Amino acid sequence: MIEVGPNRYGKSAIRLVKVDRDGGAHRVRDLTIDISLAGDFAASYAEGNNAGVIATDTMKNTAYALAGEHLTGAIERFGLALGRHFLGERQVERATVSIREHAWLPIGAAPDAFTRDGSSTRTARVSVGRPDAEIRAGIADLAVMKTAHSAFAGFPRDRFTTLQETDDRLMATKVTADWQYEPADGLDFDACFGAVRATFLDVFAEHHSESVQASIWIIGKAILEQHPEVAEVSMSLPNLHHWTVDLSPFGIENDREVYVATAEPHGLIEATIRRSDLG
Amino acid sequence: MIEVGPNRYGKSAIRLVKVDRDGGAHRVRDLTIDISLAGDFAASYAEGNNAGVIATDTMKNTAYALAGEHLTGAIERFGLALGRHFLGERQVERATVSIREHAWLPIGAAPDAFTRDGSSTRTARVSVGRPDAEIRAGIADLAVMKTAHSAFAGFPRDRFTTLQETDDRLMATKVTADWQYEPADGLDFDACFGAVRATFLDVFAEHHSESVQASIWIIGKAILEQHPEVAEVSMSLPNLHHWTVDLSPFGIENDREVYVATAEPHGLIEATIRRSDLG
Amino acid sequence: MIEVGPNRYGKSAIRLVKVDRDGGAHRVRDLTIDISLAGDFAASYAEGNNAGVIATDTMKNTAYALAGEHLTGAIERFGLALGRHFLGERQVERATVSIREHAWLPIGAAPDAFTRDGSSTRTARVSVGRPDAEIRAGIADLAVMKTAHSAFAGFPRDRFTTLQETDDRLMATKVTADWQYEPADGLDFDACFGAVRATFLDVFAEHHSESVQASIWIIGKAILEQHPEVAEVSMSLPNLHHWTVDLSPFGIENDREVYVATAEPHGLIEATIRRSDLG
Amino acid sequence: MIEVGPNRYGKSAIRLVKVDRDGGAHRVRDLTIDISLAGDFAASYAEGNNAGVIATDTMKNTAYALAGEHLTGAIERFGLALGRHFLGERQVERATVSIREHAWLPIGAAPDAFTRDGSSTRTARVSVGRPDAEIRAGIADLAVMKTAHSAFAGFPRDRFTTLQETDDRLMATKVTADWQYEPADGLDFDACFGAVRATFLDVFAEHHSESVQASIWIIGKAILEQHPEVAEVSMSLPNLHHWTVDLSPFGIENDREVYVATAEPHGLIEATIRRSDLG
Repeated sequence: MIEVGPNRYGKSAIRLVKVDRDGGAHRVRDLTIDISLAGDFAASYAEGNNAGVIATDTMKNTAYALAGEHLTGAIERFGLALGRHFLGERQVERATVSIREHAWLPIGAAPDAFTRDGSSTRTARVSVGRPDAEIRAGIADLAVMKTAHSAFAGFPRDRFTTLQETDDRLMATKVTADWQYEPADGLDFDACFGAVRATFLDVFAEHHSESVQASIWIIGKAILEQHPEVAEVSMSLPNLHHWTVDLSPFGIENDREVYVATAEPHGLIEATIRRSDLG
Repeated sequence: MIEVGPNRYGKSAIRLVKVDRDGGAHRVRDLTIDISLAGDFAASYAEGNNAGVIATDTMKNTAYALAGEHLTGAIERFGLALGRHFLGERQVERATVSIREHAWLPIGAAPDAFTRDGSSTRTARVSVGRPDAEIRAGIADLAVMKTAHSAFAGFPRDRFTTLQETDDRLMATKVTADWQYEPADGLDFDACFGAVRATFLDVFAEHHSESVQASIWIIGKAILEQHPEVAEVSMSLPNLHHWTVDLSPFGIENDREVYVATAEPHGLIEATIRRSDLG
Repeated sequence: MIEVGPNRYGKSAIRLVKVDRDGGAHRVRDLTIDISLAGDFAASYAEGNNAGVIATDTMKNTAYALAGEHLTGAIERFGLALGRHFLGERQVERATVSIREHAWLPIGAAPDAFTRDGSSTRTARVSVGRPDAEIRAGIADLAVMKTAHSAFAGFPRDRFTTLQETDDRLMATKVTADWQYEPADGLDFDACFGAVRATFLDVFAEHHSESVQASIWIIGKAILEQHPEVAEVSMSLPNLHHWTVDLSPFGIENDREVYVATAEPHGLIEATIRRSDLG
Repeated sequence: MIEVGPNRYGKSAIRLVKVDRDGGAHRVRDLTIDISLAGDFAASYAEGNNAGVIATDTMKNTAYALAGEHLTGAIERFGLALGRHFLGERQVERATVSIREHAWLPIGAAPDAFTRDGSSTRTARVSVGRPDAEIRAGIADLAVMKTAHSAFAGFPRDRFTTLQETDDRLMATKVTADWQYEPADGLDFDACFGAVRATFLDVFAEHHSESVQASIWIIGKAILEQHPEVAEVSMSLPNLHHWTVDLSPFGIENDREVYVATAEPHGLIEATIRRSDLG
């Protein structure tokens, strides 16, 4: 016998810009939205019956239609409004709304001119069912580097090991991190995001790293300790290797000064740090 | 209390090309390899202790070192050899090797000149533990289109629905699909891959589609019926919308002839079709 | 005094798909079109006067509107029709239409199902003025490799030279090439394209290369010798380095078998080969 | 007769990071460098003679080798040093060095931790011959938006025109601009870059736009008027259309509030504004 297993569907890459013109200065919201639904959709697969299939085009329309009323604060709130809207249909058991927010900063004191801050992307992932809602906030595309206080030594050596131990390497990564709020009721999501982001950057800057793994632990632990609303934090950190260039053939000393930056291959370290009572 | 939750680490985007020069004509193998390990690595996080951390640089070296002896047939075999190598270390509980193979085709009868076939990518994902091994094969980057026999109608209409029903739309997608072999012992992975790929294309070409969901079911069911070695197949199909251009303002009729191809937003339908005794 | 210097404007990335349903089997044309105009547009800059500015939105509409009647054969013909349309406006002195065609191949014998051939892109660049028209055809995204008959030796050595000479390296590139037809009147552009492409591949496969430069010469010369309608051919060839992996630390011999494929940095060789009476 | 026409060759995408550790706080320089040479290289094409062909691998080595001594200030200075080095070889008639600098900003007061500022890229293009040197500086990847004071009206209407006139549209673009310094002797390139960038942003924010063309003129004219060291400025501005979403089917008013951001197709306006005595 053959059956439909896990499945979901939706609309991805909905590009929505909203301009709030109410105050003296405009405010730009620039979002990329993915919506996906799971539930009682087996008939759409096995019988070609679309009676329950909310069109993905309708999902897109809904995002634009609800933005005026519901995109007035944090993206988490807009995600909740969108998710709950789709839960209004009986066949939907879980609606997941993922939002990436691209920041625009005013140019000087101008009320209506902006530059896009490409330094990082704020993310939210709201997954609503009956009755639960899981809210994750995060950050992506954040490139960071430590030019000191990063080591990698004491690792095992086998016949294929050539890497030298080092107590002073250049460490660079492009952060993708997100964390779950629990309980999420009544949180000021903008303030929480700013605070967690600040903790991330502060600890990244100050800590001594024995490895990317150790950095994840130190940063994650600090986030959990300083932010009781965070139940767990997950990070996916590529290790973007910078190799010291060997200039000795040219009679030039190179003491941690000139590096070649590489993209392929790269290390990739992924872990969740959590409160153990969540086990 | 704070603890390390799920975690893994490894090397990604290892680019390996192997040239087999033994026969009269050369053969080019062009792989992108991701290796990741999970197991007893908590100390590397919480204590900064690298005694068990196989360096990702060593993983890269290992891939190149083992290619001569073990990359002689299907990428699934090479993935198994790599995964089992890393399981030789006690702290490793699971080694996952994901490989994408980029095909090169001979130019005419030349023994030593090739063009890259950019039409699709063959994938494999081998995950080995003690004692089990899960082997998935797949295809990616395969763009396909149906210019007839694709409909979408009968879907619910709410206040945000504007999409018209259609019994003849253009359907286009970029296929990412993979499937699990079970049992995998003794399979000719190259033959299996070719056969499943052929079934996919044949059924895609011949079936009548009531929706992308229905297409996934019809294609997936055929794969399971025709290939007993396949236990389940998963597909992730973006619906790359092609909209009929309204040329009526210009006095030009456009009966399913001229379309605008779009990338954003796009539908996204993801499902697994499986034998129900897998429950 | 300040003035407007060279300038042009237009619409880029117009995505157009046309389905010809007339015969027994459908035919899919999939184009990405860039249109740009140059001429008497200084007032639109210096005076903010849009009286002569054909809206780029109108250009887009025009491409879709003319496709039914004019996209019936080679993309060069469609480019000519589009370019000449815009020359109908007095202020336009030169209209340039660049088209990339993405090939779709039938799946088996199906009349209405296709796979996209991602192996290369056909290009055309039609630039029409009064009265001249320049027609260039080309190919892009064509990855090719030679696993023998490629050398690089005899180059100068200075204090910064470490590269070893080799008489047997792996040579790989991603071809961007285009060529000018002159005279272009009455040419069968589809046949010409196919013939020049075949010459490119044949000579690439058969020749012995002393360098990428030498390859450009040998291939370009063959194209000019075998195709009298081609006045000149330009190539832009990245040298996508594949380095032999040093496996000697592991006691493994590696005689031109295992390579690391790299993308950054890469050589880049660009040249035009032409009939000298064009000088 | 067949001959080699215009040609050049070099190394692209050289990724170089330099860390200056001399002061109390580190400074990170992160560059992507392209080097190309033109000159007496016909023999490398037509005769396969590499006697004059400086290997592109040597170019890469040279960039790393000279960075310690010559990458101490503006990228224009480093480009000049690199270019002049290659002019030391007789067969080189022109050396062009293009550099993109990726900015890293300190995290708080940390001396050795940084975030990458992805908001824009500084560029330089230094082209040196005998005896002249042309120095262009620029900016890329700078996304800017005006939410007011942008119009587009008064354009001609033909049978294919459907765009409505507007006196209040949202204008967004991703700036690529560069400008030539003349004379360049003795300039403080870092100060000049900062000043021209500030003028660009200030005028962008303050001006009223009748079209992208008019914006280019107004901004370019201001740059030339305020910066006598700039001889000409070129801009390539995509018009990244944001369309007001029609929410009237849902009974929702949308007065310049909710937009769909689009990437394909886009307008593209390119022009040079210059001092007319350069004619």
